[in-house]
This record gives sequence, C-alpha cells and structure tokens, in this order.
Amino acid sequence: MPKPLRHVFVCSQSRPPNHPRGSCQQKGSTDVLQSFWSELQKRGVYDKIAVTYSGCLGPCDVGTNVLVYPEGVLYNNVTPGDVAEIFDSHLIGGEPVARLLAPGAVW
Amino acid sequence: MPKPLRHVFVCSQSRPPNHPRGSCQQKGSTDVLQSFWSELQKRGVYDKIAVTYSGCLGPCDVGTNVLVYPEGVLYNNVTPGDVAEIFDSHLIGGEPVARLLAPGAVW
Repeated sequence: MPKPLRHVFVCSQSRPPNHPRGSCQQKGSTDVLQSFWSELQKRGVYDKIAVTYSGCLGPCDVGTNVLVYPEGVLYNNVTPGDVAEIFDSHLIGGEPVARLLAPGAVW
Repeated sequence: MPKPLRHVFVCSQSRPPNHPRGSCQQKGSTDVLQSFWSELQKRGVYDKIAVTYSGCLGPCDVGTNVLVYPEGVLYNNVTPGDVAEIFDSHLIGGEPVARLLAPGAVW
C-alpha cells in the first residue's frame, strides 16, 4: 500500500476466558475491525487510509482500543457504532472524536 | 502504556504454506518481534518506545516489514540482526536506518 495519510490500528488481542486482564477481542474488537474495513470499502479511500489489526495497546480494561497515527490518538471503548464517526470526523476530516479519547492518565 | 515517543509495529501476518503472497511470519517475523522486545527490555525504555505486532502492512514479498510512527517510516527485509541498529539509530537517536528503508514505489 502507499504511505497513508492516516493509519488506524485496531487492537485485536485475545486472551483465555477468565484471564484477569480480559482482552479487546473479548470486548468485541473483531466487529470493530470489520466495521473499519467496511467503512473503508464504502468510501474507497484505500490510497489515504490504512486499517490494520494489532496486538495489545495497553489499557485492556477500556477496550476496544483504537490507535490512529501519525497523530498518536488513542480511542477507548470503541464499538462498531462509533466507527463511521471516527472515519468521517477524524480519518477524513482531521478532527478527532473527543468523546472517545483516552484520558491523559491512560495515554 | 503512556503515549510513546516512537511506536514500532512488526508485521506478524501468517498465511498457509504455498500461499502465493507468502507472509512476514514465514520470513521470520516472530524472531524479529522477539528481538525488538528483547532490545526494549535491555534498554528499559518502556516509557519512550512501544513495540506491538500487527497484521499485514502490504509488501509481503519484502518482509519482514517494520513500521515506525509517528514518522511513518517503513522498513523492509528486516532480520533480527538489524534490530539493535534500528533501536539505537532511529528509535532512540531519531535517525532512520537508510539501508533498510522501503523504496518510494512501495511506500
């Protein structure tokens, strides 16, 4: 792929059931990832936006975690219902979605 | 983790044997990832550098691919023997390792 304008990493870490840290996959990250790929496909912006799954991004208790570079913006508690807004406001429009931003103590 | 100064993504994509695209995992990405984690541990710079595995970054034929943000620098053909240099020169020193940079046609 060409170097993207923005690159989204969706934490897809899994852990065994009852693991004390839980995991983003347990919190629904697979559906979040599919939503990002679906919104990417709808908009056809493959030359501008990249979507990649990743390993653990840290704050498992507030997953699903989604990280956007080059800004280094971390979103917590992302659900499939948030993805279109992140796409339009931030990835294309350049304006992060304030209500989902990780607090300073986390990131 | 706190927001890092630099964030390394090591492609760890796997594909079945004989898949036409091959994969970074087939090209040794597990050892590359372990080397990054090992060098991170040696230097104890957990507050500055993050190392995360990721899904496919694109140019599978020149893997193992390693991507560094916020610069958006992509390295191709990375082996465990390259990792200490990437760490010291780029991740800590801020100077990318020119000999491993993806060419403009790739990224």
